[in-house]
Amino acid sequence: MNKLLHGTCYYPELWPESEIPRDIAEMKKLGLNMVRIGEFTWSKMEPDEGRVSVDFFVRVLDQLHAAGIGVVYCTPTPTPPVWLTHGHPDRCFVDAEGRVMSHGARQHASYEHPVVRAACLRIVETLASAVGRHPAIIAWQIDNEFKCHVGEDFNPHAVAHWHRWLEARFGTIEKLNDAWGTEIWSERYQRFDQVPAPVRTPFLHNASLSTAYRMFCRESIAEFMDAQCAVIRRHSDKPITHNTVTFFSVNQERLFANLDFASFDDYPPRDNWPAIVFDNDLCRPAKPGRAHWFMETSVAHNGWFGNHEVTHPPGFLAAEAVVSFGLGAQAINYWLWRQQRTGCELPHSAILSTWFKPSVGYTAVEAVEAARRQLEPLMLASKPAVAEAAVTWSDLGRAMLQTEPLGGRPGYEVDFNKVVAQWHGLLLEAGIHRDVRFEGAALDGLKLLITPVMPFVSPDFLKKVEKFVRAGGVWICAPTTGTRGAEHTVPTDAGLGLVDAFAGVETVFSFPITGTGSTGKAFGLTAPVAGWCSALRPATSDTRVLGTLKSEQAPGLAFLTERRIGQGAVVVLGALPDGKTGAKLLAKLVAHYAKQAGVTLRFDATPGTVVCPRATADGETLWVVVNLNGKGGRVRVPKGATDALTGKKLPAGPLKLARYGWRVVWI
Amino acid sequence: MNKLLHGTCYYPELWPESEIPRDIAEMKKLGLNMVRIGEFTWSKMEPDEGRVSVDFFVRVLDQLHAAGIGVVYCTPTPTPPVWLTHGHPDRCFVDAEGRVMSHGARQHASYEHPVVRAACLRIVETLASAVGRHPAIIAWQIDNEFKCHVGEDFNPHAVAHWHRWLEARFGTIEKLNDAWGTEIWSERYQRFDQVPAPVRTPFLHNASLSTAYRMFCRESIAEFMDAQCAVIRRHSDKPITHNTVTFFSVNQERLFANLDFASFDDYPPRDNWPAIVFDNDLCRPAKPGRAHWFMETSVAHNGWFGNHEVTHPPGFLAAEAVVSFGLGAQAINYWLWRQQRTGCELPHSAILSTWFKPSVGYTAVEAVEAARRQLEPLMLASKPAVAEAAVTWSDLGRAMLQTEPLGGRPGYEVDFNKVVAQWHGLLLEAGIHRDVRFEGAALDGLKLLITPVMPFVSPDFLKKVEKFVRAGGVWICAPTTGTRGAEHTVPTDAGLGLVDAFAGVETVFSFPITGTGSTGKAFGLTAPVAGWCSALRPATSDTRVLGTLKSEQAPGLAFLTERRIGQGAVVVLGALPDGKTGAKLLAKLVAHYAKQAGVTLRFDATPGTVVCPRATADGETLWVVVNLNGKGGRVRVPKGATDALTGKKLPAGPLKLARYGWRVVWI
Amino acid sequence: MNKLLHGTCYYPELWPESEIPRDIAEMKKLGLNMVRIGEFTWSKMEPDEGRVSVDFFVRVLDQLHAAGIGVVYCTPTPTPPVWLTHGHPDRCFVDAEGRVMSHGARQHASYEHPVVRAACLRIVETLASAVGRHPAIIAWQIDNEFKCHVGEDFNPHAVAHWHRWLEARFGTIEKLNDAWGTEIWSERYQRFDQVPAPVRTPFLHNASLSTAYRMFCRESIAEFMDAQCAVIRRHSDKPITHNTVTFFSVNQERLFANLDFASFDDYPPRDNWPAIVFDNDLCRPAKPGRAHWFMETSVAHNGWFGNHEVTHPPGFLAAEAVVSFGLGAQAINYWLWRQQRTGCELPHSAILSTWFKPSVGYTAVEAVEAARRQLEPLMLASKPAVAEAAVTWSDLGRAMLQTEPLGGRPGYEVDFNKVVAQWHGLLLEAGIHRDVRFEGAALDGLKLLITPVMPFVSPDFLKKVEKFVRAGGVWICAPTTGTRGAEHTVPTDAGLGLVDAFAGVETVFSFPITGTGSTGKAFGLTAPVAGWCSALRPATSDTRVLGTLKSEQAPGLAFLTERRIGQGAVVVLGALPDGKTGAKLLAKLVAHYAKQAGVTLRFDATPGTVVCPRATADGETLWVVVNLNGKGGRVRVPKGATDALTGKKLPAGPLKLARYGWRVVWI
Repeated sequence: MNKLLHGTCYYPELWPESEIPRDIAEMKKLGLNMVRIGEFTWSKMEPDEGRVSVDFFVRVLDQLHAAGIGVVYCTPTPTPPVWLTHGHPDRCFVDAEGRVMSHGARQHASYEHPVVRAACLRIVETLASAVGRHPAIIAWQIDNEFKCHVGEDFNPHAVAHWHRWLEARFGTIEKLNDAWGTEIWSERYQRFDQVPAPVRTPFLHNASLSTAYRMFCRESIAEFMDAQCAVIRRHSDKPITHNTVTFFSVNQERLFANLDFASFDDYPPRDNWPAIVFDNDLCRPAKPGRAHWFMETSVAHNGWFGNHEVTHPPGFLAAEAVVSFGLGAQAINYWLWRQQRTGCELPHSAILSTWFKPSVGYTAVEAVEAARRQLEPLMLASKPAVAEAAVTWSDLGRAMLQTEPLGGRPGYEVDFNKVVAQWHGLLLEAGIHRDVRFEGAALDGLKLLITPVMPFVSPDFLKKVEKFVRAGGVWICAPTTGTRGAEHTVPTDAGLGLVDAFAGVETVFSFPITGTGSTGKAFGLTAPVAGWCSALRPATSDTRVLGTLKSEQAPGLAFLTERRIGQGAVVVLGALPDGKTGAKLLAKLVAHYAKQAGVTLRFDATPGTVVCPRATADGETLWVVVNLNGKGGRVRVPKGATDALTGKKLPAGPLKLARYGWRVVWI
Repeated sequence: MNKLLHGTCYYPELWPESEIPRDIAEMKKLGLNMVRIGEFTWSKMEPDEGRVSVDFFVRVLDQLHAAGIGVVYCTPTPTPPVWLTHGHPDRCFVDAEGRVMSHGARQHASYEHPVVRAACLRIVETLASAVGRHPAIIAWQIDNEFKCHVGEDFNPHAVAHWHRWLEARFGTIEKLNDAWGTEIWSERYQRFDQVPAPVRTPFLHNASLSTAYRMFCRESIAEFMDAQCAVIRRHSDKPITHNTVTFFSVNQERLFANLDFASFDDYPPRDNWPAIVFDNDLCRPAKPGRAHWFMETSVAHNGWFGNHEVTHPPGFLAAEAVVSFGLGAQAINYWLWRQQRTGCELPHSAILSTWFKPSVGYTAVEAVEAARRQLEPLMLASKPAVAEAAVTWSDLGRAMLQTEPLGGRPGYEVDFNKVVAQWHGLLLEAGIHRDVRFEGAALDGLKLLITPVMPFVSPDFLKKVEKFVRAGGVWICAPTTGTRGAEHTVPTDAGLGLVDAFAGVETVFSFPITGTGSTGKAFGLTAPVAGWCSALRPATSDTRVLGTLKSEQAPGLAFLTERRIGQGAVVVLGALPDGKTGAKLLAKLVAHYAKQAGVTLRFDATPGTVVCPRATADGETLWVVVNLNGKGGRVRVPKGATDALTGKKLPAGPLKLARYGWRVVWI
Repeated sequence: MNKLLHGTCYYPELWPESEIPRDIAEMKKLGLNMVRIGEFTWSKMEPDEGRVSVDFFVRVLDQLHAAGIGVVYCTPTPTPPVWLTHGHPDRCFVDAEGRVMSHGARQHASYEHPVVRAACLRIVETLASAVGRHPAIIAWQIDNEFKCHVGEDFNPHAVAHWHRWLEARFGTIEKLNDAWGTEIWSERYQRFDQVPAPVRTPFLHNASLSTAYRMFCRESIAEFMDAQCAVIRRHSDKPITHNTVTFFSVNQERLFANLDFASFDDYPPRDNWPAIVFDNDLCRPAKPGRAHWFMETSVAHNGWFGNHEVTHPPGFLAAEAVVSFGLGAQAINYWLWRQQRTGCELPHSAILSTWFKPSVGYTAVEAVEAARRQLEPLMLASKPAVAEAAVTWSDLGRAMLQTEPLGGRPGYEVDFNKVVAQWHGLLLEAGIHRDVRFEGAALDGLKLLITPVMPFVSPDFLKKVEKFVRAGGVWICAPTTGTRGAEHTVPTDAGLGLVDAFAGVETVFSFPITGTGSTGKAFGLTAPVAGWCSALRPATSDTRVLGTLKSEQAPGLAFLTERRIGQGAVVVLGALPDGKTGAKLLAKLVAHYAKQAGVTLRFDATPGTVVCPRATADGETLWVVVNLNGKGGRVRVPKGATDALTGKKLPAGPLKLARYGWRVVWI
């Protein structure tokens, strides 16, 4: 599809059908070229069990198509009608406390229940067979934000599935007992059906069990998606996506595995603008060669009965859109078209008010459309540059951290998403173009790889990294990475498992260093260190100590080592520099290794101003530069740069950006 | 009854019967002329099912009557005996989490269960028939503090009642689906029995459903009270009341509907003294022509195992009593006579200790009795002046706010009671004599009406207001008022529903303004604005803008408008001025419109000193002036004022009050 | 056993059996002479129901014995195997919310269930009969940290037991109704089986019921221990202990009743070092004539998935060990030998890492062993001096405070353990050698007894105290002591029950004084007073007022009185001096009465440095002096003192101690 998309989530089923033409006319006026529909429409299609009609939505599609508006059609599985669960509490989601969910909101049905799953696939089949070839449809979305409201399911069918999953994974109960070390606390199981889901106990479950249950549930919801994809593909050749959010209880890498392209939802208030960059950087490499979409954001403020965010300032929405286009997104799509008249999201901003007037965010949408038109030819003529630096996203690591917030003293809990974002932020602040790469992804194009909070370093991962390092890459193994085994146990051969030998270190002590008054010195700076510490000693002659601890507990041991291997190097950071000086030390670390690794896609921009480098097929370079922090900024452009929108030559040196301003520059 | 009442809650059933004469002698010594008994006595009357005797209480009544002490007799329904619920968990209250309450405290039985309700009415019948004509009885109280410990009941009988209630309200399920917009999230119902009570879902229920369930439960408990009233009235002609508390889960207006007079309980610690004024101002107009009672307060400190308040300073209790008498209360009654020997309120203050000695609050009770005697002739000779200013109390509004704390960013939740108290406080601080008027109450006597947090402005209410305005009144429509429909939906014609047209405004934007840095300027002051904002534009030529926003989101729009209609005016305040300057701006707003409306019952007193204006039948004016903040104060008296207790002339000008001091003045 | 013990908890069942010799060799190298094993080994012994073998553990014992390492063998009842509870949720622990615990952690089985209890006694019998005479065993431990993860059990079998327990206690339901005053709130019971366990009610249960349920559950778990002891004693003559922790839901005094010696577990981080002193002072007098053990502590940091403590500084562990030996402990034992490879305590420090290398705490263990060797001959040649001062530990008092945190305004809750520790700390800071004595313990040797937070003062206790006072002792009755009756009711004869008459006071007012601005003056200091206040008046001519209130509520009344009785005195402190000046006042109070009582075991040491006085059989005095606060310190030694390790004479005057330093001195 040769365009940039700009659209909105649309709920024609909630308003008089006669108002659809007015809606479409207003969309056209705004220049919107897509809408997303369908995710909550099951009861509209099948008000009574078996009485199904898609006619209303065919009429909607017809009208949208006539207006030249493309449609993303969602499967309606997040909200089954009341007849599916009323009188059948056994078909509902059950949380870890055994609380059974009720009809009335979303995601209350248990997708583990065979009746629910069958009903879901049936309605998807009905829908896909009815509209699968409709020309209005440009893409499909499976369900909506899986697990946005719920975590692991403890429905009895989920637990039975868990037992089958364990059996498939381990084969015999003895293997499970060995892998999980279940002699501890006499946990030992005789049969798979005895293994509890991690329901309430007087204290904590075995880490292996807790982490495995998370991984099981996340695989199961992905399988549910796969099954829906298979149904749709029988009726349609349009691409399929799902709108993920990085902090929901899903396995991002597994979720995307069988999708055609990646999408994300994000509703950051102004201060959290780096989240937009992060999500684009995660989704861009998720499906190499396929542009990703920014599927949901609010035009002015997120809102529901329990919270609302601060209303956006002027310019913020356009900056979000431009940076997303620059970073490879093909679409930006709002939630939602017209303010909800009923439900529980009445306070959420929309393009139009309930009384069909421009809302507080309307002019921001106009500004996005103006930007989209200007950007479209330039974006279609170029592609985002392949990143040379990346941070690792490990869904198993994330599950382990949820079980065990390593270094997790109250107030010092390690949140996986936050730590990955912290390292992503270090690259961003350094002006380095970057990816967030899944643990299983190829390392193509990379020169610098940072792996934060991935407790288990698998042989496969390490093999890939070793090849990368030998070829000249620098791998930074950040704190906690390597400290656990595949089944969330502790390595028994070395403190960092396979990493010790690869990095040429001996992990001497492994302990929480927060609060001990310890400091680390490296790159000429001495900073407090915090979190879980692996205090190191070189174990091979080619291992250099770059950072040394001053610590009563681990005096003179290293917290930063480097070993050159082949053309590259492996760097172990054993403890996290903390505080202001720690932040400076980390910035120096990143700058040092970016340089050592030969990273070239690095830009000299003021903080809060982001450069999105792109390249045309014939090798020309284009920068999309955006001020995202609302303070304005500058970026240094080289000699010969040209403003891509005006065609005017730009003097070499600092190019100024207004508050939330953006520029496109041929370099 | 031609006296001021001064009494105490009394539990003779908890102590040896032989001690009753000693109790009564001590009451006489203190001058108490009433007691309240009976609310927890069911098991004393009916220790085994069907084995009933009221004899003990008849003896109590006989002795009290002989001593000239009047009795308020409570129905004993808050604490059914163990035989009613033991072995019958189905008869117990169930909370939103499905937790079934146990015997052992209070309000554990479900009044929705037919067996429980029948047993309650039977014991009330037994009681009323036995003592209904006893000459000691001066009034009845139904039950005790309905819903003081519990909120909405989710017993299956409650849910079945809910379905009948919905059917009676909507007639057909289609009407409910339309009114609630249940196509959203495929909530759509096929039958009334499918509509869930708002039990746990993965996210939030539809606002319409949540609010309706609150209103249903509050109506149901009121019906339970009505049924008890009907029983009592068959046996007694004494007036009936209930002791309400404004923050319990009841519908105050509905609760009072079938009662003979209003009563409130309040246990404010010293700093919360405005609550006493508020409660008197709410109860006084609740039953026009019938004096209200202050039914429960502590003599020194509230206390139970989870908390205790700070012990009162000397003078505070008398100030509470005097201001209540001055504001129209006929009675002040303590909880309780003698410190509890057992139970869970052992730390609560009482007049006497368990060891029958004067407690820390005893001298305070003596001071109240001295005041009562001085005040009695003056109070009997006069009545509280009818207020010219009022704030609106909307029980539907309160239910909506509980569902949706509008503007409810964490830390900025809008609590209905607090906001109404804030506006009441503005009148109080301005020295304006004021009412708290129920939404359904007549506007007789008023010149200025402020309606805070009443999201739904009904056609009936607006008709009443329009008449009031045309006749010269000023109506201030405060933030969030008008922003929702009757069924807790969003208006689709205008941002403030019917208010837009009436007030001659267009609501341009409706959004949360907190945190955006926006300010509003009016009355020469510029203050931050916060909460939910309706940004306005005049829509008629006679609408004046009095306050303008400085805001990136709504630049130049109005947050304060005025439209003259007839002899009066309607004023819309679209956003709440915040902070210290905001408080000043609000004070100016109130002063401005009090003046414009011609409010005359306004007094020049220092903060924390309250004037209660009263009038005799022949038109003479009496002020009861009380210092409530414990800092002493002054009030300006006109020429010719006389001290009503001493008969001495007072010089015109400031009249000083000591800490917690009070004066009665003929003007 | 004529040695000091130094050991570790050891889990050979979690590692390959072939590694045991390596473990033992390393233990020998470190000098460890004991291990504790067995508490979680049930599934290793009985992997399938009825298939039992203790062979593995016999082999472990054989090897340990061959190495000269003594073994404490624990019964494995905290973790029953999965076959005991899988498919039998009725056999599991149920909490107050009715939540049934699952297999997977510890203490999930209900010891109230007859099947569970029988299975427990059977496995103990199997174990004891198999290894009871094994020469490696030096002691037994019953179970492990009873109630460390759970509180009161609400399994239906527990509730049935509760009904039997009540019947045994009260005989007839009428007596229970009378004792608990159940006419209140119509609680009155017809039969014992109607008395609920304190499950969820809309408000609070009767204090009598809540406190009784705690006492019942604590007695029941002690009976479970007694039954295990009886089994073991049929097969072994080795002494039996249990490792208690003072803040678990057990009755410490009752728990120790049938044990041979006392043990405690404690994992204080550096700042909480006084806890170590407290626990030694509690356990030393618990079993007069039998040395107690310090059974569990971490070598460097406590840790599990929800928390970890700050890693110890060098010297801290040795200081903990030395002060414990000095205060009478025979053993110090670590949890654990080798870091957990699986489970949920992976972050807990151990002597060795999972990869069998010295951990961050290893050198600390070496330091302890060096100290143990130096201390051993000196400790064996002496015994701790009998304390002259003590604070009372009342398990009934603790239960009452848990029901009713007296004076319990939020933020001012009275925590029993904290208040007892506060008073213990006052003695410690005063340099006074002290005991923590159980309520039922004899008062032998004491000159000063302080009884904090013991609401019920029983006739037996008072008789003991009176004898103590008449013989010259001083009893300080601290705030809240005396304010409640045996069944958690309020005394009806006097504010402090029997104490009023004994102490020659009248409790005039009983009220919460926090926040009233009241102060108390005594010993020349005026301090704020806080908490629950008993304002006093002398009632006998020989009662002196030592401290007077300045208070609006209780002006001129006393908060500190003294009455000389016989050779001694009873002192009532009616309210707690608060803040910095309050702390000074309390220090003066303690110093004053220690002097008056003739306490001689008092040392002149800087804060944080503790003197442990000991005496040899022939009357020589030995001091173990330890710096515990990590700041170093000084203690004044008399003329003629000798360093017991070097034999060198010490000059009279200040003896310096390094950070965490310690000295042993002949006096």
